[in-house]
Amino acid sequence: MTDIKAPASANEESLLRVFTIPETSESTLSLIEKEISENLNGFLEQQIVAMQKPIGQVEEDFNSSVIPEEPMWVSDYGDQMLQKLISHSVHTSSPGFIGHMTSAMPYFLLPLAKLMVGLNQNVVKVETSKAFTPMERQVVGMFHHLVYQESPAFYEAWMHNAGASLGAFGSGGTVANITALWAARNRCFGPDGDFQGVAQEGMCAALKHYGYDNTVVLTSKRGHYSLSKTADILGIGRNSFIAIDVDAHNKIDIAKLRQKCTELTAKNIRILAIVGIAGTTETGNIDPLEDMASIAQEFNTHFHVDAAWGGATLLSNNYRHLLKGIEHAESVTIDAHKQFYIPIGAGLVIFKNPQLSDSIEHHAQYILREGSKDIGIHTLEGSRPGMAMLVHASLNIIGRQGYELLIDRSIEKAKYFAEQINAHPDFELVSEPELCLLTYRYVPQAIQSKLLNCTEQDRQAINNILNELTQNIQKNQRENGKTFVSRTQLTPEKYQGDTVIVFRVVLANPLTSYDILRHILDEQCQLACQQLTLLKNLQFIGH
Amino acid sequence: MTDIKAPASANEESLLRVFTIPETSESTLSLIEKEISENLNGFLEQQIVAMQKPIGQVEEDFNSSVIPEEPMWVSDYGDQMLQKLISHSVHTSSPGFIGHMTSAMPYFLLPLAKLMVGLNQNVVKVETSKAFTPMERQVVGMFHHLVYQESPAFYEAWMHNAGASLGAFGSGGTVANITALWAARNRCFGPDGDFQGVAQEGMCAALKHYGYDNTVVLTSKRGHYSLSKTADILGIGRNSFIAIDVDAHNKIDIAKLRQKCTELTAKNIRILAIVGIAGTTETGNIDPLEDMASIAQEFNTHFHVDAAWGGATLLSNNYRHLLKGIEHAESVTIDAHKQFYIPIGAGLVIFKNPQLSDSIEHHAQYILREGSKDIGIHTLEGSRPGMAMLVHASLNIIGRQGYELLIDRSIEKAKYFAEQINAHPDFELVSEPELCLLTYRYVPQAIQSKLLNCTEQDRQAINNILNELTQNIQKNQRENGKTFVSRTQLTPEKYQGDTVIVFRVVLANPLTSYDILRHILDEQCQLACQQLTLLKNLQFIGH
Repeated sequence: MTDIKAPASANEESLLRVFTIPETSESTLSLIEKEISENLNGFLEQQIVAMQKPIGQVEEDFNSSVIPEEPMWVSDYGDQMLQKLISHSVHTSSPGFIGHMTSAMPYFLLPLAKLMVGLNQNVVKVETSKAFTPMERQVVGMFHHLVYQESPAFYEAWMHNAGASLGAFGSGGTVANITALWAARNRCFGPDGDFQGVAQEGMCAALKHYGYDNTVVLTSKRGHYSLSKTADILGIGRNSFIAIDVDAHNKIDIAKLRQKCTELTAKNIRILAIVGIAGTTETGNIDPLEDMASIAQEFNTHFHVDAAWGGATLLSNNYRHLLKGIEHAESVTIDAHKQFYIPIGAGLVIFKNPQLSDSIEHHAQYILREGSKDIGIHTLEGSRPGMAMLVHASLNIIGRQGYELLIDRSIEKAKYFAEQINAHPDFELVSEPELCLLTYRYVPQAIQSKLLNCTEQDRQAINNILNELTQNIQKNQRENGKTFVSRTQLTPEKYQGDTVIVFRVVLANPLTSYDILRHILDEQCQLACQQLTLLKNLQFIGH
Repeated sequence: MTDIKAPASANEESLLRVFTIPETSESTLSLIEKEISENLNGFLEQQIVAMQKPIGQVEEDFNSSVIPEEPMWVSDYGDQMLQKLISHSVHTSSPGFIGHMTSAMPYFLLPLAKLMVGLNQNVVKVETSKAFTPMERQVVGMFHHLVYQESPAFYEAWMHNAGASLGAFGSGGTVANITALWAARNRCFGPDGDFQGVAQEGMCAALKHYGYDNTVVLTSKRGHYSLSKTADILGIGRNSFIAIDVDAHNKIDIAKLRQKCTELTAKNIRILAIVGIAGTTETGNIDPLEDMASIAQEFNTHFHVDAAWGGATLLSNNYRHLLKGIEHAESVTIDAHKQFYIPIGAGLVIFKNPQLSDSIEHHAQYILREGSKDIGIHTLEGSRPGMAMLVHASLNIIGRQGYELLIDRSIEKAKYFAEQINAHPDFELVSEPELCLLTYRYVPQAIQSKLLNCTEQDRQAINNILNELTQNIQKNQRENGKTFVSRTQLTPEKYQGDTVIVFRVVLANPLTSYDILRHILDEQCQLACQQLTLLKNLQFIGH
């Protein structure tokens, strides 16, 4: 700093201090940091207010659209942040927060996350990441091996190969799904004679060259919304994203899938990809992947498996078999920020054949040069953080056996909760847990029997009221702020197409105890009893 | 945890401990954390080895493709990580590392990053982010205001509006550029009568319905590589991404742009978007944005500005004028992880008209419901971390005035470095700094005069040798590990189309001193003198 001009004002001096002098150990930020280091859950329970403010009121603290003119003391910001932001955030790692796919995390990830930010590597290129490049390639290789279990020679040839990639690490499952179908599209409509391929010439020229009237992607009705978004982004169109019905277990109806493939092919429509789901977002079920792989082969199409949620099940030798057939997929999406217990911002796509990555290869003048090992040559994203480091640490520290225990316990917990629901007179299990997700609803015992013996009209009327009841219970439980379940809509076979709103729970948090689960049912019973009008209306139907 | 079964083995107990009990303050990870908290630069300088190992050797430590079977002690992993990963990473925040767009960061971001991970909010939906949703919307609003300076009433109406979005926060500039052109494409080929729009029906049906033979995106030859990748992803095709020549100052040639637009329109090709660059990646120049906006209006097309790098210049009242015309853009990309000094993984796209976000709106059953304030309704990515919190903190703590100082000092530093290069007999400045980027190369004084008075053949021969010289100096300087500049290829007007390899420097790190800059030139001179053969070959040309 020798000859940068002497500070023109106090501002410049204090500004540079922000870059060079750490906070003192008594500052607000340091104290917050100490607390989260020592007792994260305690900190969150103390700081996040239990009673929820309506979002409209929270917005009042974030209303200015002008970047503040004057600098602010770090400690003042820390105080303000505690009161306005943290106190009204969500305790996503709470053992009673079982409505979404967040969980408690291993403690060692906290210092590692800080280290990652301190290192601030950019893994788009070797020049700004060095060892982070082979480290990330290894993580991708380990995920590849988890799915495909190729030989050591295979990984020796490909894992650190400059010309290809075993997959791509990215910010999450959506980017992974887009990348998979982008690669599938580019290979399906690749260069051919004078035609330079869809990557160069676009979708319209591709269909024209190959002589198809259209191209489609097929998946089940339980497919994640990112898949239709992908069809939009890739220029295929959401109408060409075809959702096939599911069976009573929320798995794709194989007969209908085959029939649709035959129909489409007869209409000169190219099936670009079939997408199997390993762990649907809403019910946690796994498609019959082996059968889907056969159909994909039959129709000469790309088979992708979206295992964003369920992929981690492969870590358990006791449940791995549930995903049988995934090894036939040409690409697989797995989120590390779900059942690998990594903080949000870590998803992977894996390519069975690393040469699939050729179809999305790209270069630039100043980086990503031909022959370099820059990972960015084969990713949708550009500059990316060294998040793979957190995955690398967890795979090593927890180990496959540790993950197996976590996966097994989660599934056992879901089975236990399903038993509790089944044993309770006033609850109805709507989808059985195959992994650690299940759905259910509150239905007073008397209404359960009525539902089985009533007219279609009455059944629909009852389900409509129950839907309102479920919504109210879910909202009130969320607002009470102690526990949280989410809700979604299903059309269970037993109600012949009636739309049914259900509670949805995800039991991946290792700190969620059996006690908490019982407590959640108790709380829901109490909340239900407060819905006097709805309960009365239910009784009157059919009388 | 009352009645989860008693641990079946020591493994289970220790596994749960990882989720519940923090590292002791004497553990390796805690010690690392303490060091980076107290003296990040010292830690990095001490831990990252100065002499670089070839990447092939680093790979040897990341060769196993099998997820380790047994768990590992956190401290053992910490030790291993120090030796194998951190020691061979890149000191991207070093004041002497001026080759890429990374910099030293404010200290307060370290504890905040840890807090962000501890909170693990998922901003895709309100249910898993609560106050993080209005906070992120405010950050997007502040960036919108930075560019467009709309009235308070505008922000009151739109910033927290459930039905629209002022832009999208994402993992970086690439996602931002894709989002901008995705929205532009969907609006350009929106629903019209029976046609449901390109989002639903795909690119081919869109061109057919609107009766165009093709659609294209235009930008300058200096456009970022993510733009042609975008053309590929969106189904437009890389051939339809048209790069217009630049003038002597690396700005798009406006006459050629207009001419190309006229040509294309005459050929029944729809111009989907014109992309202006505010801070080219290679040279830091800014396109004539006002003129481009006029042309975009003339040809009724979307005007996007990629200000990933240069957008932060708007924070300085002294240099804001350089980006005049950006306020006419319908969308703007700005990276927070560049000149806003945020760790990697933070980029934004801003929409002038928030209703542009309608064109990329999407919903699901269990989240992103119609009328909800879930941010994920209008983003390319799905689950996303609360990174906006770091931007919110920096905007408040540094303030506009603080950022202005940082921006101004960077530009002054680049001007100083350009003067040093110009004053030095053996260096040639190739591109003048407009922002804080510049390019140059080492050319011995005698060769500089020879280049001005020689045959075309000799000029090409000299430039070829100089290219090799530049490459060798750059590589050797990188391998010495003390300082780092990057390199790229340009075709400066004065050499009539010869490809010229240049050093490229980015002077945004507030800790880079004038001393360091002079030292870098000295080191390059010394490295050049070691290239005896090339220097000798240079002398013989033309003799």
